[in-house]
Amino acid sequence: MRVELINTGTELLIGQVVNTHVAYLGQSLLGLGLRIERAVTVPDGLAIAEAFEESLSRADLIVVTGGLGPTSDDVTREAAAEAFGLELIFHPEILEGIAAKFAARKFQMNELQRQQAMVPRGGVVLANNFGTAPGLIIQNDKTVAVLLPGPPGELKPMWEQQALPWLRDRFADRLRPVHERTLRLLGVGETAVQLAVEKELLALGPLEIGYCARPGEVDLRLIAADRSLLDRAVTLVRGALGDSIYTDAPETMEEAVVRLARAAGMTIATAESCTGGLVAGRITNVPGSSAVFRYGWVTYANEAKTAELGVPADMLATHGAVSEETARAMAEGALRASGADVAVSVTGIAGPEGGSTEKPVGLVWFGVARRNGEATALQRNLSQTRGPFRMMATQVALDLVRRALGEFGGWDGESSVRKRAMSPPRGCEPCVRDG
Amino acid sequence: MRVELINTGTELLIGQVVNTHVAYLGQSLLGLGLRIERAVTVPDGLAIAEAFEESLSRADLIVVTGGLGPTSDDVTREAAAEAFGLELIFHPEILEGIAAKFAARKFQMNELQRQQAMVPRGGVVLANNFGTAPGLIIQNDKTVAVLLPGPPGELKPMWEQQALPWLRDRFADRLRPVHERTLRLLGVGETAVQLAVEKELLALGPLEIGYCARPGEVDLRLIAADRSLLDRAVTLVRGALGDSIYTDAPETMEEAVVRLARAAGMTIATAESCTGGLVAGRITNVPGSSAVFRYGWVTYANEAKTAELGVPADMLATHGAVSEETARAMAEGALRASGADVAVSVTGIAGPEGGSTEKPVGLVWFGVARRNGEATALQRNLSQTRGPFRMMATQVALDLVRRALGEFGGWDGESSVRKRAMSPPRGCEPCVRDG
Repeated sequence: MRVELINTGTELLIGQVVNTHVAYLGQSLLGLGLRIERAVTVPDGLAIAEAFEESLSRADLIVVTGGLGPTSDDVTREAAAEAFGLELIFHPEILEGIAAKFAARKFQMNELQRQQAMVPRGGVVLANNFGTAPGLIIQNDKTVAVLLPGPPGELKPMWEQQALPWLRDRFADRLRPVHERTLRLLGVGETAVQLAVEKELLALGPLEIGYCARPGEVDLRLIAADRSLLDRAVTLVRGALGDSIYTDAPETMEEAVVRLARAAGMTIATAESCTGGLVAGRITNVPGSSAVFRYGWVTYANEAKTAELGVPADMLATHGAVSEETARAMAEGALRASGADVAVSVTGIAGPEGGSTEKPVGLVWFGVARRNGEATALQRNLSQTRGPFRMMATQVALDLVRRALGEFGGWDGESSVRKRAMSPPRGCEPCVRDG
Repeated sequence: MRVELINTGTELLIGQVVNTHVAYLGQSLLGLGLRIERAVTVPDGLAIAEAFEESLSRADLIVVTGGLGPTSDDVTREAAAEAFGLELIFHPEILEGIAAKFAARKFQMNELQRQQAMVPRGGVVLANNFGTAPGLIIQNDKTVAVLLPGPPGELKPMWEQQALPWLRDRFADRLRPVHERTLRLLGVGETAVQLAVEKELLALGPLEIGYCARPGEVDLRLIAADRSLLDRAVTLVRGALGDSIYTDAPETMEEAVVRLARAAGMTIATAESCTGGLVAGRITNVPGSSAVFRYGWVTYANEAKTAELGVPADMLATHGAVSEETARAMAEGALRASGADVAVSVTGIAGPEGGSTEKPVGLVWFGVARRNGEATALQRNLSQTRGPFRMMATQVALDLVRRALGEFGGWDGESSVRKRAMSPPRGCEPCVRDG
């Protein structure tokens, strides 16, 4: 079954908005055993119709996002109707529903909303519970097209609650689910992972292997039709790469950390300088994190480190803010002031200014303090570009918390692979997640 | 001149990685007056060659990202050579350069790196200063293809420092730059913006207008070939939508805030509950923010609000953590403890748990305290989904700081458009930026 995706929107092509639909829908379709064979992004206007015609000749399923809204540049509905040769019919009940939403929020509806109530003849209407534009499913003998609104907050519930069940039913006899596991690793390079496991994995049986290096981690993706083969593959990788793997579940580092802390009944505090609150921000992004996180400090200035965390002013004067001593003292101060079980600190040089020969941009010290344990510190040289630097620094800080939480024992253990071979860090874009 | 983009990588289609190259390259090409007419994402393997053949027949410029790395699923180099009918030649000096990078980092090079030293005959080699895979430019009589490595940290400098100058030179006689301005607005809906300005804008002259609503803001994009027309359009929108516009420059809200604070010589402190450090995280993402930001608190638990910010325990007991009184007291406490000129606080219910009939998920109180001024508070009902809620809450908090910094006078003024018509919030994906 061939699946194609069409995303409409000039804003996607001129750099105003990043398209996250390909990744979201791709992951979702994979669970049905379907893969997007081609994802095409076109600007507003006639190009949508052209892309429709092309996909229609090849694909069994076309998923389209965007262009269903009320403004003049939203023309997907019309393009789809034309491609399928269907007349557009006005549905008054849709406009009434939109009017009710406006009334409930005490907003005034305007005449532009009316085009959202037009439906290609015979089309299935997908209700939009988080916005105004309804989705649509239309089909001919060969091809099904699912039209979804562009805003992710509207698209996702509509897709999951209405479109996916409809597709499962419609294509029940043609779907062949596959199984996928992604292992996420920290502290080991992409080619080192390949050299450590690929030959042995391929010897196990028909398995698809993918690598993705991104700032702060490497993902190893395994796909197989046979679930037990996949389980054996995961076991093999776990044996070879051990505690470099921070998860083999579809979860982020912060989700793993919150999960482990909740399971252990432990609390976490943060003391951040160069990451400026992002470590706390990632932890508190996880629903239920209030059970494990109560205090965080952003001590960007030296006097804040002294006033809030008790880092001695003479220590800062002697060793500097980016030093082993300060990192340790920050973590100790946060532990003391918060009463948490584990405190992590980050202090480094994010750049572009502030570097020196001795302490270059990219240098960062992490501290970890544990209740009834000795505080320790760790140095890393991370990216010299501010964005990746901050991302990698939060990732290492969270990994130190993970290790301190005790899943794998000592947080400062080096992975065995690290000693064999390691490539310079490469990086795909970090996952963009919401929720 | 027709431009097409090809992105390779199964990981982009199965949801492992979000493709940010389309947005980045699209924005960059726009400055040359070029638009990507089609962006195609294909999986690893033969589909790359197919996409190449198709684009080759239509496009004057093809930009390709990904698949230049050292692992077995990187085949872009081979596909490009085949599409253009060019032989691949081994360049020992490239491999020597890679070996030197490994040596400098005390990593051990492995044999997989060799394929990165293969170059289609006659190809221009683009040096990779942040990774190992070199980029390539190849061409025939009609079409130029630029091959770039997938990692953004490698792609961006290579594109900006080597590929773009080469293209400017190569196509000097065919480039017709256009001008683009995007005005970013807060507190007003997408259709309200359209109704407020579109008719008047179109009367000015040939102008392309685009709208994008995203969590926490609406972007109004204006494109014109004539710069003075564009300036008149911006002036018109400024007149109609006034202080709802937080910027008309290519900057984020946090960049606008840091710019204003630096200009005013003022400092900012943050006191966050539901946003968990992200307001501070956004401010400190801006290079040079250390001049205006020194202290931030993440007081996620009630006792942290009391211990760190001096919010009276009986106030929390009487009014709750999510209340006007607490928001104000948090901001006052942060101002006092930090000595900053402006302090902002955020306390709300991010969900999914913790809501009630009286205080539903999505409710948030913001506080603003100014040195020598009275603290004020503001209530908003934002998204009921955790991710967008946190994004919108940081956006409103930063906007309150912006207004407090005094660019437009009173921070609590309602925009005039707001009273005319307002649609429910719709949202594209937020911009994904780094650095």
